[in-house]
Amino acid sequence: MGSTMSSPVAALLHYPFDPASRAARLALGEARVEFSESPVKPWESDCILNQVNPTGMPPVVRTLLDGRTLTLCELGAILGWIEDSARGPLLMPVDPVERAETRRLTAWFERRFNDEVNAVLLHERLEKAILKLGPPDARSLRQGREALRHHLGELEELLQGRDWLAGRRMTQSDLIAAAHFSVMDYFSEMPWASFPALKAWYVPIKSRPSFRPLLGDRFPGVAPPVHYADLDF
Amino acid sequence: MGSTMSSPVAALLHYPFDPASRAARLALGEARVEFSESPVKPWESDCILNQVNPTGMPPVVRTLLDGRTLTLCELGAILGWIEDSARGPLLMPVDPVERAETRRLTAWFERRFNDEVNAVLLHERLEKAILKLGPPDARSLRQGREALRHHLGELEELLQGRDWLAGRRMTQSDLIAAAHFSVMDYFSEMPWASFPALKAWYVPIKSRPSFRPLLGDRFPGVAPPVHYADLDF
Repeated sequence: MGSTMSSPVAALLHYPFDPASRAARLALGEARVEFSESPVKPWESDCILNQVNPTGMPPVVRTLLDGRTLTLCELGAILGWIEDSARGPLLMPVDPVERAETRRLTAWFERRFNDEVNAVLLHERLEKAILKLGPPDARSLRQGREALRHHLGELEELLQGRDWLAGRRMTQSDLIAAAHFSVMDYFSEMPWASFPALKAWYVPIKSRPSFRPLLGDRFPGVAPPVHYADLDF
Repeated sequence: MGSTMSSPVAALLHYPFDPASRAARLALGEARVEFSESPVKPWESDCILNQVNPTGMPPVVRTLLDGRTLTLCELGAILGWIEDSARGPLLMPVDPVERAETRRLTAWFERRFNDEVNAVLLHERLEKAILKLGPPDARSLRQGREALRHHLGELEELLQGRDWLAGRRMTQSDLIAAAHFSVMDYFSEMPWASFPALKAWYVPIKSRPSFRPLLGDRFPGVAPPVHYADLDF
């Protein structure tokens, strides 16, 4: 993280338990962007997101640029803007191999992890509670947890030869992964004990100042496990 | 398209009817990268993709970089590498508002269009044929076609005030959109007559040299409509 941005001021619309929203908060924090946070409820029909993002989904950042409003819809646009605005590479590595790896992992989380883990586990634990769709289904939970363990196993292996997911320095892929895992962790779904390298990688990320605001969010009716906000777990 | 790349040589692994693979071919073509194409069958367990991409999915590009093999897994890594390697912006616009718009649209196709249209229509028309899962289901087809029309309507509206999807110049989002539509078009699923602005946008893209190789691909047992490869339809 050698560079910083020239401190623009931004407004973030986010949902506190949406992994992409968490990744946006971490990235803005790491880039030292001065930003305000407005938590929103994307499932409500009058949610402001419907006016600013055609998909109606968080995260969205709004900032001023030469007197115009610049609206950044979706995590990719926010990360891209941070990188464009920085003096030199900020959340992207310099080495082409590590850049490719960062982008591969980003796509992995955006599609595969979302489809196989979030669409199952977060649906059962979070969406069903929000939309009052009844209790979680035991079989779906089991299937989602198996998929999660499979993904964690792949990343555990990756970390055998690397300090960070994409190589020698922290990148946006670490922030995206940590954002996903922190939501799982809140719902007591992270089997940390079985993945020591991942745990060792997560501790210093969780200790970063950018992470602190996330750890204070609470989901109605669900308390996080004791270790969740413990920086030394 | 002001810039070009310093003509590296690359090998592309792709599946001819995968929209992301088609977008990679278009982008490599537009960037004037000299590349060889190897069509692969990702659903076969011994597919070479399983050795090079942990997700087992196309597209993947391999190229040499200072004597090392640089493996670019997933469309995002390929597009990022093209942009990194170009002298100046190539498939990305320069204007920050248009850059944000390009990234928003890219995310739209990667997630929403994939989930709502491809996961339904391409599953029914393509995957079921490949995996011998029986004939398409009429209700799913109807649902997928409705979703497609909804997406096309959004883009049709966008094009009322713009020459290209993200603004004043052709960007990677145009190539990604055209890649998706060309697959739908092959299977006679594009209701062009109802979307005149989209049709007018598509004709010049389809006429580009980068598009020509795509139009020659054939899916076993399915002939494309007469207008499919007609550059003046």
